[in-house]
Amino acid sequence: MSSATPSIPDGDSPPLTREKSSMSYTYDNLTGWKSVRVLRIGRGMFHDVKRRLPYYWSDIRDAWTYRTIASIIRMYFVNMLPAIAYTLDMNRRTGQFYGINEALFSSALAAMVFSLLAAQPLTIVGITGLISLFNYTIYDIIIIYNPSIYPQFMCWVGIWGAIFHWIVALCNMCDYMRYVTDFSSEAFGFYVGTIYISKGIEELISEFTSRGPTAGYMSTMIAILYFLTIWALEGIGSSTIWRPGFRGLLADYAYVIATIFWVGFSHIPGPLKAADVTRVPISKAFYPTQPRSWVVPFWDLSAKWVFAALPFGFLIMLLFYYDHNVSSLTAQARQFPLKKPAGFHWDFFLLGCTTFISGVVGIPFPNGLVPQAPVHTDSLTVYETDVRVIPSEEGEGAEIRRPIVNATAVVEQRVSHFVMGLAIIGTMTGPLLIVLHTMPSAVFAGVFFIVGWGSIGSNGIMNKALHVLQEDRFIQRAEPLMKVRNRKILLWIACQLIGVAACVAISETIAAIGFPVLIIALIPFRVWIIPKWFSQDEISVLDDMTADNEAVLSSLGGAPRFPGEGREVREHGLERRYSEQKRGVSRQRAGSIHR
Amino acid sequence: MSSATPSIPDGDSPPLTREKSSMSYTYDNLTGWKSVRVLRIGRGMFHDVKRRLPYYWSDIRDAWTYRTIASIIRMYFVNMLPAIAYTLDMNRRTGQFYGINEALFSSALAAMVFSLLAAQPLTIVGITGLISLFNYTIYDIIIIYNPSIYPQFMCWVGIWGAIFHWIVALCNMCDYMRYVTDFSSEAFGFYVGTIYISKGIEELISEFTSRGPTAGYMSTMIAILYFLTIWALEGIGSSTIWRPGFRGLLADYAYVIATIFWVGFSHIPGPLKAADVTRVPISKAFYPTQPRSWVVPFWDLSAKWVFAALPFGFLIMLLFYYDHNVSSLTAQARQFPLKKPAGFHWDFFLLGCTTFISGVVGIPFPNGLVPQAPVHTDSLTVYETDVRVIPSEEGEGAEIRRPIVNATAVVEQRVSHFVMGLAIIGTMTGPLLIVLHTMPSAVFAGVFFIVGWGSIGSNGIMNKALHVLQEDRFIQRAEPLMKVRNRKILLWIACQLIGVAACVAISETIAAIGFPVLIIALIPFRVWIIPKWFSQDEISVLDDMTADNEAVLSSLGGAPRFPGEGREVREHGLERRYSEQKRGVSRQRAGSIHR
Repeated sequence: MSSATPSIPDGDSPPLTREKSSMSYTYDNLTGWKSVRVLRIGRGMFHDVKRRLPYYWSDIRDAWTYRTIASIIRMYFVNMLPAIAYTLDMNRRTGQFYGINEALFSSALAAMVFSLLAAQPLTIVGITGLISLFNYTIYDIIIIYNPSIYPQFMCWVGIWGAIFHWIVALCNMCDYMRYVTDFSSEAFGFYVGTIYISKGIEELISEFTSRGPTAGYMSTMIAILYFLTIWALEGIGSSTIWRPGFRGLLADYAYVIATIFWVGFSHIPGPLKAADVTRVPISKAFYPTQPRSWVVPFWDLSAKWVFAALPFGFLIMLLFYYDHNVSSLTAQARQFPLKKPAGFHWDFFLLGCTTFISGVVGIPFPNGLVPQAPVHTDSLTVYETDVRVIPSEEGEGAEIRRPIVNATAVVEQRVSHFVMGLAIIGTMTGPLLIVLHTMPSAVFAGVFFIVGWGSIGSNGIMNKALHVLQEDRFIQRAEPLMKVRNRKILLWIACQLIGVAACVAISETIAAIGFPVLIIALIPFRVWIIPKWFSQDEISVLDDMTADNEAVLSSLGGAPRFPGEGREVREHGLERRYSEQKRGVSRQRAGSIHR
Repeated sequence: MSSATPSIPDGDSPPLTREKSSMSYTYDNLTGWKSVRVLRIGRGMFHDVKRRLPYYWSDIRDAWTYRTIASIIRMYFVNMLPAIAYTLDMNRRTGQFYGINEALFSSALAAMVFSLLAAQPLTIVGITGLISLFNYTIYDIIIIYNPSIYPQFMCWVGIWGAIFHWIVALCNMCDYMRYVTDFSSEAFGFYVGTIYISKGIEELISEFTSRGPTAGYMSTMIAILYFLTIWALEGIGSSTIWRPGFRGLLADYAYVIATIFWVGFSHIPGPLKAADVTRVPISKAFYPTQPRSWVVPFWDLSAKWVFAALPFGFLIMLLFYYDHNVSSLTAQARQFPLKKPAGFHWDFFLLGCTTFISGVVGIPFPNGLVPQAPVHTDSLTVYETDVRVIPSEEGEGAEIRRPIVNATAVVEQRVSHFVMGLAIIGTMTGPLLIVLHTMPSAVFAGVFFIVGWGSIGSNGIMNKALHVLQEDRFIQRAEPLMKVRNRKILLWIACQLIGVAACVAISETIAAIGFPVLIIALIPFRVWIIPKWFSQDEISVLDDMTADNEAVLSSLGGAPRFPGEGREVREHGLERRYSEQKRGVSRQRAGSIHR
């Protein structure tokens, strides 16, 4: 994609060639039981470690650049703000079992484990909206029977979940992630964005009901202005105003600037201070929110309930299988010029471990963050905005000038993830908890809006819908979507939106715990049903591999083989390649699953 | 500008050729006392009527198109909403002397007189923010002495103002408007926009102080959302989404849609209704707000005060000289393919008459609306968005497609202005006054924001500032501003902004009545000082004639002659011509003095 030489020294790490990476873990030339992936226990994990370990030292040595600092600050905000926001929601809806201390503990644990041990340290792991949804739906089910067993029950969900994680990791089943295409990952991103925005609205409604109309309207005002502030700052970042360095700073620290400003604003004495909005509820530092010890007495649960937790553990695994691995895929998408290889099996095993620990100590289960994971890689990427001069014959002078963004290198390391984890541990101490307590929940509603819109506004579904709505004569003739009839494009996004609508609808009911099944079901639907409705040419324009990076496929046992298609799956993604050719790569400011 | 043939039939009106229009009123070949404009009493007015009268029948006959209907609805909202908004402010600050009934009477009077009798029926006349500022500043002065004489004093201000108007009109002094360039009219637009936005903020602050924080925050929320609604709808109107007809509808009726929606929203039972925001205060239909008869007893004022009103009357004339005539200039700017000639002297005489009547009956003096006047012409213009295909050699296919907007014709008539006036008279009746009473003042704050931003966001000062901030390599090489050093551009906009800042500063003090002097002073500043600081080449890029339409100059005695320049003042406006060549004309959605 970029022809420039990366400016970050590669040190003396082993050179990664395409041959080597695709050869080290493959089933291509195997026959008999050796070609059956699930029977080759631990083969994927072994190769993941073998492939990645030689880079460990360079993961530390390569980190000493300014981009690492910018990344730490940006990710601290982008990770913590939604995590706290979800915790506010979860806290209300799980009888105050999960509080800020639990959320911080969980985020810190995940950051420590994954920054130190993961094969993919770029994937930021933390608390997502879906785990919050999952936890309070289980609470809604449990209180029908006996609210007091909720901690132990959740603990067993974690234990079973961990076991299923380990099975999946050992049996190399992450390999099937290579069949994930933008068909399902765009739908997932759209679903997550919808949940974010509706959570933001719920947060504001809760201000009205718990604090009265003055606090409600003030919170709504702050949430809207917070959204607009970040939107404007990131807009300036992608413009051609000011020097690249300065506008980059504005965009890098958009969350920092907006959060500090609007938190301060909410404390201005007078009507603002008097509105008495909800602020982040905190409790004693390092102690659980509830009066309990950190270890949940999981042995105090009757066998009936222990086994009742088993299907829930399976659903957790199913959710994380999709959510965590898609996070890793988007954090290592092809637009980022990555040089270090991936390791899905090993990381999924680690995720089982954090799920186990989280269950035992009674904290929310962390997993890879959609849509924030690619923001981490983005924050570490060295972008260069070049000018493209297009000779033109018509009256506007002799040329047209247009900016084109190139990603020249990524500072691939694990220090930013680790230091961000340390910052979270710092936040767990008393003085910083008090700083947290100054934050109005209105700011979190604003975070929900901006992150949610980041996931929807630039989503492929949205782009295709805009293409269909566009007046025909203004569409560039070279646009690949011109090759597909509008009727077929509409059918495509209708299939995606039905999936989104089903997930959103189920999320509002007690059946919400079943949503991972729906999401996972989109993968076989894409593999088996879609080719019956769309021609190969149409699919090659409309769809793209989510796992499209050479370094990624090396961990998934090579490129996928779709039924009815030849080996040439790389023909997918015409649309994306057209856009990249025209404008360069698109940045991942607020986080978006669409690349 | 447009090569297309206008689609509106021209009927059998006398054909207007450039020769004829520039010959009918000129001082070019005259010598002796005959060449002294002020001595040729009534010459301009006579030629205005003689030139325009033959088109009167076609002004009615040409009106029967859909554009006229769209124009009536749009202008009713764009005229009335700010008028009511200013009246809310004026009402509070003039001891409730001016109320809604006075504002409606004034707007209706102006619409009737100017739609039926004006030579320039496109210029919408009504209540502006500056007259509101003027009226309450006089109130601030008068209450120092004797508040009870305010009505009579304002009446005499109107009578003296009218006399000065008639003198100016009879002595052909509107001719000097041809020296107005974008240097001063941009500064004026920026000043007006600043006043609008600060009035919007004052409106919201007044909600906090008079109704408490709940009403205050809710009003702020509605004002922001109202702004965003119109901004988005007008954005869609200028995009290439949907069919041209549909997106045109959204933009045409943006104010209607947003106003109906947000007024309705403020009435939703529950916390919204309970917030009890300020709504438009109304009184008995057709009666003055104060218990008085419509005729102000102007004979009940001591001679001392009658003569004290004289300088204020002069300042009113000075304000209207600039404000009204600039309205007419922008409503008849070159970008509109107008065919019917202008008539500045006659209209200024009429303005004297409405000022006289307004004084006697005790209503605010109406005058030409900046920035709404060009919106009227815009609403009557038939735009065609064409596609321009630019052959390009580089990889993006063989071409680049870009929309280009052409104005093909203007439905020049007086029916839209007249029917809008009838609609205002209708609003004066009891039942419709009650509808008016449902409107929260928050909506008016939103109107202030969107109209104010319309005047600032697209202002030439803003464009030049953005050009300076732009990173050099992304600026198209054909851009005329590239020929001027950034230092000189900054000096230019600094001169403009110092003028704006002086006006804004004075507006906040009791010296506010003097601001017309400052605005008028920008014209000689431009004529005498600016050429000393800027070369002829620089001026030709940075400045442009505001009176640039052939049909307009015919009423102003021909093109101006700047000191130190040849006859070739048409060399001005390189910047605007470059932009038009590239994107076509820019539309006047929310109103802006910058063309």
